Amino acid sequence: MTRWLSDEEQTTWQSYIRMRQRLDAAIAAGLTRDGLSPSDYEVLVALSAATGGQLRAKELGAEICWDKSRLSKHLSRMAARGLVDRCQAAEDARGREVRLTDEGRRVLRAAAPNHVELVRRLFIDEMNETEAAALRSLAGKVVTEVERTDVAGIG
Amino acid sequence: MTRWLSDEEQTTWQSYIRMRQRLDAAIAAGLTRDGLSPSDYEVLVALSAATGGQLRAKELGAEICWDKSRLSKHLSRMAARGLVDRCQAAEDARGREVRLTDEGRRVLRAAAPNHVELVRRLFIDEMNETEAAALRSLAGKVVTEVERTDVAGIG
Repeated sequence: MTRWLSDEEQTTWQSYIRMRQRLDAAIAAGLTRDGLSPSDYEVLVALSAATGGQLRAKELGAEICWDKSRLSKHLSRMAARGLVDRCQAAEDARGREVRLTDEGRRVLRAAAPNHVELVRRLFIDEMNETEAAALRSLAGKVVTEVERTDVAGIG
Repeated sequence: MTRWLSDEEQTTWQSYIRMRQRLDAAIAAGLTRDGLSPSDYEVLVALSAATGGQLRAKELGAEICWDKSRLSKHLSRMAARGLVDRCQAAEDARGREVRLTDEGRRVLRAAAPNHVELVRRLFIDEMNETEAAALRSLAGKVVTEVERTDVAGIG
């Protein structure tokens, strides 16, 4: 028996979806001006936050929630542009490492100021303390719930 | 001069990004089980909400924030699967209309219960009244700000 959403719940979900669509599109447009797609940016940020600017492909995929096929295709394109390179992990013959190149770091640094300015203008500056606290609290609960839910087992 | 984010602002933004990544991945996995991608679902929902299940391509693109090229490619794939069809608008020779087919409506109805169950379990059920109200309020402000901001003029 489907538990459909009430009108108010539906409004809340639609508000979130609409914010996400508008914000994604604006942020994508901003990054595009600096020669990056949102996907490129996600990979570059995750690598730049990792020790030595490198991660196993598997860890990188888990960090940004991409499946193996999407990650592999996208990394090939980024490697062709010189933004990342891939190498065998020294200590483990099975692990493929992905590493941020100097060029990747340069491109990320060049894009960051405009990106941060957009995030601030369109999102951070719009929220008051109550909204910011509510968002952090909700996000924490949602992430925990997603991580413990077996999606395949629903329905 | 870049106004970088404070630690707290950075935490807020990262919380949102992480929630979005986790939620997107789980919802995509749920839809995939029912033979739809999140992009298919977005198009089907927008059309099903429109009068007569049809919209001009341009209006559809604006509704879901896709550029012309992405929309055109994706609609071709959905048309090949019989989920939508495209026709000339009767009253305006310039306007191309996109219409939900009976098959598109059937597939959307079949996917909806599992999708709604996931949205409820992973998102709606996690939030209290304060968080829901804060999210709706923030989303409204962000959408307004995105719509009045000239992204190309930033930086």
